[in-house]
Amino acid sequence: MNFLYILDLVGTAAFAASGAWAGIRREMDLLGVLVLGLVTATGGGTLRDVLLGDSPPFCLKDETYLYISLAVALAVFFQHRRLEFLQHPLLYFDAIGLGTFVVIGTGKALSFDLGFIGAVMMGVMTATAGGVVRDILSGQVPLILRKEVYASACLAGGALMTLMHYTSVPPNLGAAIAAITVITVRLLAIRHNWALPRATP
Amino acid sequence: MNFLYILDLVGTAAFAASGAWAGIRREMDLLGVLVLGLVTATGGGTLRDVLLGDSPPFCLKDETYLYISLAVALAVFFQHRRLEFLQHPLLYFDAIGLGTFVVIGTGKALSFDLGFIGAVMMGVMTATAGGVVRDILSGQVPLILRKEVYASACLAGGALMTLMHYTSVPPNLGAAIAAITVITVRLLAIRHNWALPRATP
Amino acid sequence: MNFLYILDLVGTAAFAASGAWAGIRREMDLLGVLVLGLVTATGGGTLRDVLLGDSPPFCLKDETYLYISLAVALAVFFQHRRLEFLQHPLLYFDAIGLGTFVVIGTGKALSFDLGFIGAVMMGVMTATAGGVVRDILSGQVPLILRKEVYASACLAGGALMTLMHYTSVPPNLGAAIAAITVITVRLLAIRHNWALPRATP
Repeated sequence: MNFLYILDLVGTAAFAASGAWAGIRREMDLLGVLVLGLVTATGGGTLRDVLLGDSPPFCLKDETYLYISLAVALAVFFQHRRLEFLQHPLLYFDAIGLGTFVVIGTGKALSFDLGFIGAVMMGVMTATAGGVVRDILSGQVPLILRKEVYASACLAGGALMTLMHYTSVPPNLGAAIAAITVITVRLLAIRHNWALPRATP
Repeated sequence: MNFLYILDLVGTAAFAASGAWAGIRREMDLLGVLVLGLVTATGGGTLRDVLLGDSPPFCLKDETYLYISLAVALAVFFQHRRLEFLQHPLLYFDAIGLGTFVVIGTGKALSFDLGFIGAVMMGVMTATAGGVVRDILSGQVPLILRKEVYASACLAGGALMTLMHYTSVPPNLGAAIAAITVITVRLLAIRHNWALPRATP
Repeated sequence: MNFLYILDLVGTAAFAASGAWAGIRREMDLLGVLVLGLVTATGGGTLRDVLLGDSPPFCLKDETYLYISLAVALAVFFQHRRLEFLQHPLLYFDAIGLGTFVVIGTGKALSFDLGFIGAVMMGVMTATAGGVVRDILSGQVPLILRKEVYASACLAGGALMTLMHYTSVPPNLGAAIAAITVITVRLLAIRHNWALPRATP
């Protein structure tokens, strides 16, 4: 589980950076940038824990998540020009975070005996709800509702993991396959500009 | 209680359809439309359960709500032109959902021993919070804060039901009267374009 | 604790007034104004209680908060022109509310054994989350993320109170110092137009 924890912190840092950058782009002040970094990184898991009734949420039990988020957001705020070169690699770290968050969220929901859709939803929500709140706080229609195969990659991984949970696949193997699925689908989507169908209005 | 359950599912379907249509109008992709359908149909009851501390929320305990919401949103996404003729009748199903949700929310709050305002608020919230989140996710000022006698119909029904709860009116009769009040006020408001007063700025 | 309770109600009234005025400015109807008043006044403490798992939240346990919020919002709705002269003094009552809410939120988090950042966050959130929801419901980027030393005043007070909690300072004295800090910083910020640094994009 130690390896998963490290991936979790890497994902947290990547999400915090994306939130902080969104705040800078919207010309927020220092505090706004910190809040956006924090919310993007920890919002999804917090919402999951609130819905599961597991309080206080993970990041208030283990403040490491909060310290990392704030440190990253501070660094981005004060050094965002010097850190510009990180914007592209950030997409990869973000994908790692996505895979990790889905696996953690789905796994936790399964351990709370949720049903199929509930477990998949908790996985997707853990990975994406922070970004949704980031967009709402920035006054934008949430990105994941509009474009890119982002939440869909999470959906695929969460569904796969939940299905394997009902079989005799060892949990750790199932989690690894699910995380790799999310990360692979996400990276392919970035590379090939995949998009979901849209209804013709 | 079986009859109430069926009405509840009818309302869920109507709310999911209204959410899905909002997503299509905002040119969201398949996933966005599913999320909006789901959130509109189950968001109010979920928020109620989170506030009452009844976790996991109703729709994670009985996934029927999730399956219906997703099925309706899928159907609207793929057949929204063919289903156009449903837009008008949808207003009536939506009114049924409104009445049912108010009664369920107020009833649950009363069984949790909430006070007068709390019980009425939970009823109104069960019926309207999903639509508020739908509007926020679509980047719009929530409709119910701006126009139409919508939440006010819920307010009337919730208040009536809570008042009757303090008298010797049998609970089922009280619930029926409250639901019929919500539905009647709502349909009259649609027919006669009722609106609440606005402050002259 | 009685004195703190009175300050708490004063702050609730001030927050409800600011929410109601925001609704009037956005040309909302009566119900929208009531909802905005209610949410601004009680949203922060409610979110805190949800995250701490203390359900139902404070305002559903003691409905005084709801009655005051609704009464103030009603008064503002119907008499907002006659009450115009209160707009300026409102800033001072708002500052009192800010200090009180921070102290209550931080204190509650400490009694739930949260860590340093968690306790400070709960204090800041109790004081500011209601205003954030008010702005989101009004379709605006939350004010506190963009300008003014508002949340930062709360941050200073919450951090001070948490630090003193780890020393032998008597809790009541610590709370008083923290509240006075928040109020003083906030009033100085208003007077001198203080602002936090912004990242140069």
